[in-house]
Amino acid sequence: MISIKTQVGIIGAGPSGMVLANWLKKYGIDAVIIELRSREYVEGRVRAGLVEQNTKDILKELGLDARMKKEGIVHDGVYLSFDEERIHIPFGELTGGRTITIYGQQEITKDLTDAWLDGGETLHFETKATKIIDFDTKSPKIHFEKDGEEGILECDFVAACDGFHGIGRKTLPKKSFQSYDITYPFSWLGILANVAPSTDELIYAYHENGFALHSLRSETVSRLYVQVDNDESVDNWSDDRIWSELSKRLANLGWELKEGPIFEKSITPMRSHMIDSLRSGRLLLAGDAAHIVPPTGGKGMNLAIADVKHMVDAFVAYYKTNSETLLDTYTNDALRRIWRAQDFSNFMTKLFHKQDAHGSFTYRLQKAKFDYLKVSRAYKTTIAENYVGLPFESFKN
Amino acid sequence: MISIKTQVGIIGAGPSGMVLANWLKKYGIDAVIIELRSREYVEGRVRAGLVEQNTKDILKELGLDARMKKEGIVHDGVYLSFDEERIHIPFGELTGGRTITIYGQQEITKDLTDAWLDGGETLHFETKATKIIDFDTKSPKIHFEKDGEEGILECDFVAACDGFHGIGRKTLPKKSFQSYDITYPFSWLGILANVAPSTDELIYAYHENGFALHSLRSETVSRLYVQVDNDESVDNWSDDRIWSELSKRLANLGWELKEGPIFEKSITPMRSHMIDSLRSGRLLLAGDAAHIVPPTGGKGMNLAIADVKHMVDAFVAYYKTNSETLLDTYTNDALRRIWRAQDFSNFMTKLFHKQDAHGSFTYRLQKAKFDYLKVSRAYKTTIAENYVGLPFESFKN
Repeated sequence: MISIKTQVGIIGAGPSGMVLANWLKKYGIDAVIIELRSREYVEGRVRAGLVEQNTKDILKELGLDARMKKEGIVHDGVYLSFDEERIHIPFGELTGGRTITIYGQQEITKDLTDAWLDGGETLHFETKATKIIDFDTKSPKIHFEKDGEEGILECDFVAACDGFHGIGRKTLPKKSFQSYDITYPFSWLGILANVAPSTDELIYAYHENGFALHSLRSETVSRLYVQVDNDESVDNWSDDRIWSELSKRLANLGWELKEGPIFEKSITPMRSHMIDSLRSGRLLLAGDAAHIVPPTGGKGMNLAIADVKHMVDAFVAYYKTNSETLLDTYTNDALRRIWRAQDFSNFMTKLFHKQDAHGSFTYRLQKAKFDYLKVSRAYKTTIAENYVGLPFESFKN
Repeated sequence: MISIKTQVGIIGAGPSGMVLANWLKKYGIDAVIIELRSREYVEGRVRAGLVEQNTKDILKELGLDARMKKEGIVHDGVYLSFDEERIHIPFGELTGGRTITIYGQQEITKDLTDAWLDGGETLHFETKATKIIDFDTKSPKIHFEKDGEEGILECDFVAACDGFHGIGRKTLPKKSFQSYDITYPFSWLGILANVAPSTDELIYAYHENGFALHSLRSETVSRLYVQVDNDESVDNWSDDRIWSELSKRLANLGWELKEGPIFEKSITPMRSHMIDSLRSGRLLLAGDAAHIVPPTGGKGMNLAIADVKHMVDAFVAYYKTNSETLLDTYTNDALRRIWRAQDFSNFMTKLFHKQDAHGSFTYRLQKAKFDYLKVSRAYKTTIAENYVGLPFESFKN
């Protein structure tokens, strides 16, 4: 039986767990992390790579943004396309200089993990959290298994940063929260291709054939998506068909989509999941453990790290001034931002996905919104400020 | 058989028909109006009274805004309430000084009719348009009946400003347009009461019991509404029940709703109706003949008068320079604004009406929008600029 003691026991070494650990260290608060997967798996797990301004500011505050600043690609805007007409939303101009950076989630995780381990701190990979107990007392415990051996991590607080399938949410007392599950009537077929991006910034497109998104991974790797039915199979999508659809849906006068070898194809369903409590006693949840938003606004990782910001505020207040006020308001502080992101992601999803027949009333209202974007600086600003992330101060009551 | 000749034959002496006639006169273009109802009926027909900035500017340009300026009540903003929390949207501050004026639609109609008749122009009341023919030629004709006698109004153009049930839309060749009909799953129970308004500006409210709106008619008459089911009957709504519901739904700390004798009660269904062509040859439609929007944004009359602005531009271009360009673009020029208003009215309707259980995902997204309004000047501006009416220049291609 392994026995470990720390102040904050963290489950999950993804971006939220690793930001939390590094941030707490800055304030002299001890943390130990346990992670189900291997280091190689975690650092190779390719996810979104849209880093909003708040997240950039946090990584900067932690002194862990050096590689992101070097290798990441700053985007000062986004292209929105509707029926093959394309407009530009200039972020910096509309939000007082706030931007996003394209830098893979796994790269952030890697930078944070390197810093943590280089500092001699504890992170147990390939360690399965099996049970969280006594979180209604002052000394909760995480039971775990590592290399066939059982162990107990005793701590003051448990931070469950363990994703949608983790033990954190499953442990929250069922009666303490309401949950929300929305399944959208379409999915994304995503590809990775070895070809330079055909655009300097992301392109979101409505087309009568359906939604398309041109994103990018690096200067030589492009990431693109097309809207497909929920029962669609990748087998029906040859490389030729994919490029041909992308070309049509992203079309714009005088612009051409560069094609290249596709090395990954997969279909992702679009859904929203929410619970309305992120805490029970001394168990606190962050990130995918508590919420899933549709990927249309690029909010997933950024929201997870925003949760952690509120968690850090609460822990620091507790350890420095013995105040539990921010622990008590953690759920509501985090939820205000999460519901905002849910609404924005929902808005972007509904604006650019084909939901009803081309030419229907629903389509006409989508088109009316796009036409309004063309002429209203205020409306453009609402997209820009949500996209780069509203400042934390905005959500203060 | 009565026989009349004019340049523009107008069906309907409501606000759009009367603005059109007076405006054309300013440019020396002749018009004759026929109206099904009596003068007393038309001028007593109580409708909305929210006059947006564009409409005010048009009445000013026509020199017909003297009484409105004297008797109308300028509103520089609107109150929005959600779960008994109230915020203010300051129009002038957010839109560079644009505002709305509360002045009854029937008063505008009266002012315009007086001016027209005082100028010795022709308006046939109690005259029924029975047929519009030859609008695919250069000399269309309106057949009518007056005092049991038949007549023909021969003209260059027919302007159908004759409302949803008028002959104008019914005459448009079926194959030339697509129509859209949306019925919302709730209605408005509206009352008129002899009591001073309890507010200086309109209040739109979401409440778990449903939507409520505090509007006003004058300094001594209040107009209020509550959301009810579509199958609701006024018989189920005693005065006491109405005031009690209004008090709950409009509630705000330290504020009190004044009650008074109710002298009118009625239920109005909420719907959207659109057609995507407002013209066939020399027959042009304006206002309710072509579109119905839910009343939540106060757009009905304003849109009708905006249609007329495009119609006037087209007729003036035709008579002064013999150009048919603006006639050809009339439908699209008008539709851009109409779809914007449809979308705005739809947005306001969905934001403030109870659509799903209180606490549901739909409710949470409504609440998230309201919370966003509290902190974003840009988002507030989108409400303000739509509410006072976007300038015509905004819709130029």
